[in-house]
Amino acid sequence: MNVVDLIRKKRDGVELTTAEIRFLVDGVCSGQIPDYQLAAFLMAACCRGLGRRETMELTLAMAESGEQVRPGAIPPPVVDKHSTGGVGDKVTLVVVPLLAAAGVRVAKLSGRGLGHTGGTVDKLQSIPGLRTDLSLGEFVQQVRRIGAAIAAASTELVPADARLYALRDVTATVDSLPLIASSVMAKKLAGGADVIVLDVKHGRGALVQEVEDARRLAELMLEIGTRAGRRMAAILSSMDQPLGRAVGNANEVEEAIACLKGGGPPDLEDVAMQIAAVALCLGKEARSVEEARDRLRGVLRSGRAAEKLGALVRAQGGPVDFLEVPQRYLPKAPVRGQLRASRAGYVDAVDALQVGEVACGLGAGRRLRGQPVDLGVGLELHAKIGDRVVPGQPLATVHARSAADLESALTALSCAFGYRNSPVQPPRVLTATLLAGDP
Amino acid sequence: MNVVDLIRKKRDGVELTTAEIRFLVDGVCSGQIPDYQLAAFLMAACCRGLGRRETMELTLAMAESGEQVRPGAIPPPVVDKHSTGGVGDKVTLVVVPLLAAAGVRVAKLSGRGLGHTGGTVDKLQSIPGLRTDLSLGEFVQQVRRIGAAIAAASTELVPADARLYALRDVTATVDSLPLIASSVMAKKLAGGADVIVLDVKHGRGALVQEVEDARRLAELMLEIGTRAGRRMAAILSSMDQPLGRAVGNANEVEEAIACLKGGGPPDLEDVAMQIAAVALCLGKEARSVEEARDRLRGVLRSGRAAEKLGALVRAQGGPVDFLEVPQRYLPKAPVRGQLRASRAGYVDAVDALQVGEVACGLGAGRRLRGQPVDLGVGLELHAKIGDRVVPGQPLATVHARSAADLESALTALSCAFGYRNSPVQPPRVLTATLLAGDP
Repeated sequence: MNVVDLIRKKRDGVELTTAEIRFLVDGVCSGQIPDYQLAAFLMAACCRGLGRRETMELTLAMAESGEQVRPGAIPPPVVDKHSTGGVGDKVTLVVVPLLAAAGVRVAKLSGRGLGHTGGTVDKLQSIPGLRTDLSLGEFVQQVRRIGAAIAAASTELVPADARLYALRDVTATVDSLPLIASSVMAKKLAGGADVIVLDVKHGRGALVQEVEDARRLAELMLEIGTRAGRRMAAILSSMDQPLGRAVGNANEVEEAIACLKGGGPPDLEDVAMQIAAVALCLGKEARSVEEARDRLRGVLRSGRAAEKLGALVRAQGGPVDFLEVPQRYLPKAPVRGQLRASRAGYVDAVDALQVGEVACGLGAGRRLRGQPVDLGVGLELHAKIGDRVVPGQPLATVHARSAADLESALTALSCAFGYRNSPVQPPRVLTATLLAGDP
Repeated sequence: MNVVDLIRKKRDGVELTTAEIRFLVDGVCSGQIPDYQLAAFLMAACCRGLGRRETMELTLAMAESGEQVRPGAIPPPVVDKHSTGGVGDKVTLVVVPLLAAAGVRVAKLSGRGLGHTGGTVDKLQSIPGLRTDLSLGEFVQQVRRIGAAIAAASTELVPADARLYALRDVTATVDSLPLIASSVMAKKLAGGADVIVLDVKHGRGALVQEVEDARRLAELMLEIGTRAGRRMAAILSSMDQPLGRAVGNANEVEEAIACLKGGGPPDLEDVAMQIAAVALCLGKEARSVEEARDRLRGVLRSGRAAEKLGALVRAQGGPVDFLEVPQRYLPKAPVRGQLRASRAGYVDAVDALQVGEVACGLGAGRRLRGQPVDLGVGLELHAKIGDRVVPGQPLATVHARSAADLESALTALSCAFGYRNSPVQPPRVLTATLLAGDP
């Protein structure tokens, strides 16, 4: 088999065979196919697309390219969730302990943030001493012992994706639905969960902006997971404005704790509850989403969800009393300032992309893989779409490293807000819940 | 300016600006754009195409990327010709001395063979002592002095193309008309000729198989050259069967000499005469193609064309008496054998691609850039399309390095021939002559 012939086939829109896809993924892992040939293949796939069968086989070949959590290593049901990424998205920090407190095991492999979107691994890093670099053995052991673990996806897990993803990032081949779907699902399949709930974002701050693209992406991933024998569901949720009020790292952990204690922002709670409820149903722990939500509300009220996050933090090396006094441990940026409304009106836009860029500019995110992140910087939104504001009213508080950073953040942030004179209906964050057929 | 944005634009089918094309070519030359990003760009250009303006600007930027023959360095008219490549294509070895003997200067920069197609530089290498690695200064001086030079295009000439071409070869992005056109024309423009005649091949053994694609490619190159102020023409010629009877290196030089002495195969003479006649017209040395052909026939008969090749060989370091006794100098492979017809009939196919592959397999060509070539091996065809053959009649003589090579060449070669029972019209080699408007 010849790489150039394989690239030519894809360039001409011809479907690749199973053997060709395996050959490609083998070449990715062994390093025998050089970057430039992979880049040409990725661009051809981007331009000509991949069929359902090709996407499925690419996913399976990638999932099997490295270490995997052996199915059954943890007694089922084991839940995993995945978000396609957004601004202020701390849902994992709520869902994982909530489900574990409800008695369902959660084995969550997470990523780091890139560009305007944040990553759970970065957020957790703001808890002193906490490790996310668990070995697969440690990861499995912890889930068995306390019912939950959140670890960074290592490069031993799905090494083919690690290499392809790094290339896609620098060759303008990120936003292809089959490539996104295979990248996400390869990691989920290798993670070993038998229940997988996807949170596919759409809107200004999302990877795919249009709801219909988000739906197609979700359906593609559901199909892949179902065919691979997993119980699957997906929600579509809006990323037109940031989720919740905190955007950064340490402050997002704080907001997640507030949510676990019953005092979180309603949109964050909506998304977290829906994902957890769907997961409970798929895990056969509830007979309807409504029953699941009732049970989860009880868990939140009981304080057991917050306690479970405390247990997870302790298990992964964080402070024993973290959940009692998080402020003692979480870093805070030295400089603080407020953005205030310059006019009266109803907020009709809080541009998630723009807010994410501001947070990234403050140092909360990275432009390039491997850059360090400042865990104490970020911002809190005091107004969201639908709120009525008067001149001088605080719209956001910015936490910065320096006065200069603060200044430019406030200027950029002011452009993220849009107003109307007439009342604006607060948008629903949940767009749809998609259930896959039984595997 | 950002490379990823530029790749994304082309991926989405958006036209690049002049500044973006310059930025790209600058990055190719400086090495600042890595191979994988160039590969992604090339594939995007392959899939989405390049507009006329983009192709023109890419060509100019590449032409200016390295050394150039200064226009006027040689008094005009100065002729160059280019073939898109074929099997048995020794036309350059005939046209260059023929035109020079007719009093027109010819400054020809040639390439090496790759895959099933041969290259003039390899063929010339079979003449002992002959140098093709002339510096641009030597090249210009020789054209001024004896009216003709054939040199290998160095990597200082159009370095941007050298890098892009090497990448295209290994990323299945060779057969894109705008990329072919810009690659060819950048080299022609940098070569400094003011009269350029293109020989665009079509058929089984050609880079583009369909006549209509060949015509589009020719028209694109004519437009580029004309806009750059050069006088341009193109012929379309068939590469369904090899040109002439000799395929290899040393044996092709012998056939070119025979042609210059008035005894060449008719198809080779047809192509060479038409290219030379069109060049004479463009160089204002003749008022019609018919007048030009008459004059060129006289030049051939006078022996001055053959003498001119002798002068060129001497000027470039070859033996002084080469043209008198070429057999004394040209290498010959040790093993020889014949393919004989197994049935009676009329030959209706001598597959140029297959014949080229056989020659390449014998060692006359290279699969990969930089591989050495055996100059003495090759084959002669004794039958071509339209010929009537009887069982046992020799179809071809093969010159090989070893008995094993001979054996496999004969087997493969037998598949190149096709037969019919009824008479077959010998095909015309010249398909069309395309003239561009005045610059």
